[in-house]
Amino acid sequence: MSGTRRRARTHAVRSNEFTLPPRLPAKLENPFPPVDLFQPQDVERIVDAAYRILERGGVEFLSPAAQAVLRAGGCDVDAATGLVKFPRAVVQAACATSPAQFVLHARNPARHLHVGGNVVNFGPVNGAPNATDLERGRRFGDIAAFRDILKITHALGILHWQGGVVIEPVDLPVPARHLDMYQAHIECADIVWAGRGVGGVQARDAIAMACIEHGATASELAARPSLLIVTNINSPRRVDGEILDGIMAMAAAGQCVCATPFTLMGAMAPITLPGALAQQTAEALAIATLVQLIRPGCPVVIGGFTSNVDMRTGSPAFGTPEYVLATLGGAQIARHLRLPFRSSAVNASPCADAQATWETGFSLWASIMSHSHLINHAAGWIEGGLSASYEKLVIDAEMLRSWAEVLSARSFTEDDLAVDAICEVPPGGHFFGSPHTIARYEHAFWRPILSDWSNFENWRDNGAKTATERATGVWQQALAAYEPPPLDAGVQAAVAGYVAQRKAEIAGG
Amino acid sequence: MSGTRRRARTHAVRSNEFTLPPRLPAKLENPFPPVDLFQPQDVERIVDAAYRILERGGVEFLSPAAQAVLRAGGCDVDAATGLVKFPRAVVQAACATSPAQFVLHARNPARHLHVGGNVVNFGPVNGAPNATDLERGRRFGDIAAFRDILKITHALGILHWQGGVVIEPVDLPVPARHLDMYQAHIECADIVWAGRGVGGVQARDAIAMACIEHGATASELAARPSLLIVTNINSPRRVDGEILDGIMAMAAAGQCVCATPFTLMGAMAPITLPGALAQQTAEALAIATLVQLIRPGCPVVIGGFTSNVDMRTGSPAFGTPEYVLATLGGAQIARHLRLPFRSSAVNASPCADAQATWETGFSLWASIMSHSHLINHAAGWIEGGLSASYEKLVIDAEMLRSWAEVLSARSFTEDDLAVDAICEVPPGGHFFGSPHTIARYEHAFWRPILSDWSNFENWRDNGAKTATERATGVWQQALAAYEPPPLDAGVQAAVAGYVAQRKAEIAGG
Repeated sequence: MSGTRRRARTHAVRSNEFTLPPRLPAKLENPFPPVDLFQPQDVERIVDAAYRILERGGVEFLSPAAQAVLRAGGCDVDAATGLVKFPRAVVQAACATSPAQFVLHARNPARHLHVGGNVVNFGPVNGAPNATDLERGRRFGDIAAFRDILKITHALGILHWQGGVVIEPVDLPVPARHLDMYQAHIECADIVWAGRGVGGVQARDAIAMACIEHGATASELAARPSLLIVTNINSPRRVDGEILDGIMAMAAAGQCVCATPFTLMGAMAPITLPGALAQQTAEALAIATLVQLIRPGCPVVIGGFTSNVDMRTGSPAFGTPEYVLATLGGAQIARHLRLPFRSSAVNASPCADAQATWETGFSLWASIMSHSHLINHAAGWIEGGLSASYEKLVIDAEMLRSWAEVLSARSFTEDDLAVDAICEVPPGGHFFGSPHTIARYEHAFWRPILSDWSNFENWRDNGAKTATERATGVWQQALAAYEPPPLDAGVQAAVAGYVAQRKAEIAGG
Repeated sequence: MSGTRRRARTHAVRSNEFTLPPRLPAKLENPFPPVDLFQPQDVERIVDAAYRILERGGVEFLSPAAQAVLRAGGCDVDAATGLVKFPRAVVQAACATSPAQFVLHARNPARHLHVGGNVVNFGPVNGAPNATDLERGRRFGDIAAFRDILKITHALGILHWQGGVVIEPVDLPVPARHLDMYQAHIECADIVWAGRGVGGVQARDAIAMACIEHGATASELAARPSLLIVTNINSPRRVDGEILDGIMAMAAAGQCVCATPFTLMGAMAPITLPGALAQQTAEALAIATLVQLIRPGCPVVIGGFTSNVDMRTGSPAFGTPEYVLATLGGAQIARHLRLPFRSSAVNASPCADAQATWETGFSLWASIMSHSHLINHAAGWIEGGLSASYEKLVIDAEMLRSWAEVLSARSFTEDDLAVDAICEVPPGGHFFGSPHTIARYEHAFWRPILSDWSNFENWRDNGAKTATERATGVWQQALAAYEPPPLDAGVQAAVAGYVAQRKAEIAGG
C-alpha cells in the first residue's frame, strides 16, 4: 500500500470503521538538539577510561579467527586465553574508518533506513521467548506470533526496521528457525530487517536471503548494504565464538553490525554509571575495531543497554532513572566518537499496564532526545524482554506516533498567527465557526489510535475498558486490515526455494 | 517529620513493611538546557502578534475597578463594554517590573517555593469535581477526599506546593467551603498553598489565613510573599468580575498571581498553534499588566493551558502532541519575556490506565524540559480534570520521583570510573562480589514505590495485579503512614477560630 494512498485515508478507532493510520516518515528527523548528560571534559574522561580498560584489561575473544584479525591489526593477543589488549591508536583508527552516517537499503526504496545524524529510527521488540495478549494469555512464542507482530507493526506503520528475532518461534527446530524468520521478514513487510545476532550460519543465510530479496550479488549487497544484526557481548569483557562468527560474516559482507553490551550495573558492569559506561564503551569499541579491521568502512553502530538491578532481589530493571541517564550518557559518548548509537525503549513490567507505559515512555524520551539512532524494543516489549505483548504494540504505537508528530519540522505563516481571526471572534465567543477554523479543522490535529477522549459516562457505557483492554480491539483490527507489501512473485519463490534447500541441508546434517 | 529523618529511612513496597520515600528536593534544579520549539525570530513574531491582539482586539475586563486601574495605567478602556486595549509600551513596562524569579515562603522554611530560573516545581490535581479510587469508585469530591489527597501527597513527599481546590468539596456549602480548604492546607502539610482562583472574598480569606499561619501582618506577608492563586481567563479575551476580584485582592496584598488562559485550539483559541500561543500570551500579559499596575514587582506567573479538541466530537484532549508543542512553545515565549511559566502534566483518560500514564508522562517531559516553573496537576489528575484519582497519585508519584532523580546534579570521581574494578573482574565474571560494588550497593540505585520488577511467575502468584491495582495498596499505606507536619497549637487554634468566625459571618449574610 503506498504511503500516499494511506496518508489520504482517515482513521478512527471509536467506531467500527477502523482504517489504518498514516505510516511514520521513513526519515524522521529530530529538530531539537541532543540532551547532553555530561560536560565535554567528563565525556573525555569516560572515553579515556574505556581506552585504559582496552589497553590494561582487554577483552576475551573466544574465536581464533577473530584473534588472528586482531593480532594482524596490531592488538596484543594471548592465544592461551583469547584475551586481546587494544592499543588506543588501533581503536582510534577503527573509529576513523567507521562511517558516522550511512544508509541501509530496504526493498521498498521509500523506506531506506537512515542511520546517523539527527534521524530517529524505531525497531520492534526483539528476542522475546513468550507472546502474550489479553485473549490467549501468556504462551511460548511461535512463528505465527512472529508473523503477527510483523503484520501489526506494518499495518500500524510505526517501524523503521524489523528486528531479527522479534519473538522466538519455539515451535520450529532451532537449527533452521532463522530461515523461517527471515522469510517472514521478507514476506510480511518491506523495510530493512535484521538477522539473528548470534551465529555464522545464521548471518550467512541472512546475507544470502537479502541478496535474493534485492536481486543482488554479494558484492552488490556490500556496495549497497541492507542488513543489520544486533549482537550482545558476554559482559564483562568476553565475546563468545558464536557471536563472533556472526559479526565476522556480516563484516566480511559489508553489512551493518550493531554491537550492544548488555551491562546491568552491579552485575555485569560496575555499580557506578560512569564505570558502567566506560565498560560499555570499551566493549562496543572492541567489536567496532574487529569489524573495521575486517572491512574498513563497514557500517557499525555502538549500542548501549546499561541498566540497573534491584539490589534486594537481583531483578533487572528497565526504564529507570539509571536507564535514562545511561542512555543520555551513552549517546553522548557515541557522538563524541562520531559513531551511531543504539538504545531501547524498555520496561520491566509483568504486564502491559501503567508501569510498562511509564517505564517505556521514560526510556523513549531519553532515547529520542539523546539522539539515539536506532531505538530498539520500541514496540511490544514487556517483562524485561521476556514477553512480546500484542496490546503493548498498540500502546507503543500511540507513543511513537505522538513523538513523530512532535518531531515534525514546522514553520508558520502570518495567517497561522491568526491575529485577524482572534480580533474577529468576540470576547467570550468561540472559534468553532470561524472561517480560520473551518478552513483547517479536518487536518488540524494529530489523531490517536488508542486514546479514548470521550467523557466518563460514555466510556463507562461502552464497557469501561482500560487502554490495554481497548488495545486488543485495535491490534485485531490492524491485523484484519493488514495487506502485505508488494513482493515480486519470482523473488518470493526464490526465497521459499532457498529456505527449503537450506532446511534440507540442515536436516541432512 | 524532618527531611533528614525521612531521608535516612529506606522504603519498600513489595513487602508489608512500607516506609515513606524521601521527600523530593525543595529546590529541584534542572541541569539540562530548555528544549526550544521555535527559532528566536519566530518567538518574536508570536510575541508581536500578542501585542497586536492587545492593541487592536483588546481584552474585556468585566470589573469597573480593574478598568479604572488599567485606564489610569495608560490603557484605552471602553466603559460601555469593558473592552481594554493595551498599548504595547504599557505591557512592556509591566513585564519589566515583573520579577523573573522569586520565592514564595512556606511555613516550613526548608520548603520554600523557588519560582523561576531552572527550578522545577510540582503541584497536585486542582479543581476536580469528582474523586475516584478502585475501592469506592467514582463519586463527588468531598472534604475528606480533599484532606486525603493532601495527606497522601505529603506522605509521598512529591509536591512543591499544594493546589487551591485540589478537589471540590461538594459536601460543604459553596460560600464558605474555601475556608475548610485553606484550613486543610495549613493543617495537613507545610508547603506553600494556593487560594481558590476565583473570587475576592476567597482571596482575602486566603490572605488572612496565611497571615495567621505565618504570624505575619498583611504588610509583612507582602514583603515575604507566601500565597498564590492560579486563575483562568474566560478565553477568548474576556475576564469576568469574580476572577478579577481575586486577582486584584492578591495583587494588592503582594501575593503571587498565576494567570493561565485555558485555550483549546479550535474552540476558545485559533486552531493553529502559533495563533493559540499568540492569544494565550496576549491574555496572560493583560493580567500581568493589571497586577503590575496595582503593585509593581508583585510576583506573576504566566500560564499556558493550550490544548486541542477532538474535532469529531468536541472533546478536549490533553497530553497530545499539540499539548506538548504548546508547552514547549509557551515556556519559550515566557523565557523571552523574562516571566516565569506554568504548565501542567495532564491527560484525558477516563481511568488511571496506560493512556492516563502515557499522556501525563508526555506532557510531563515537555513541562520539565521546557523549563516550566510551576507544573500543575502533576499528581492525581485524570479525565481531563474531572476526577482526582487516588491510584493516579501513586502512578504520578513514581513518575515525579523518577524525573527528580534524573535531574539530580552529578559529578564523578576517578573511583566512580572503576577502571581498576573492571580490570579486576575476570572476563565473563560478575560484579556482585566486587569490593567496588559492596562499598556502594546499599544506596546505589533509585527505588520505586510502585514498579514491580519481579518475574512473571512471582507477579502472577502474588495476584497478577496491574500497577493501577497495586497503587491502591500504596496510597492506603501512605495514608496510614502519614504524620501531620509540625504546626504550632496556637496557630492551629487561631486558624480554626478564624474559620469559625468567618463561617458565622457568611451564614449571617
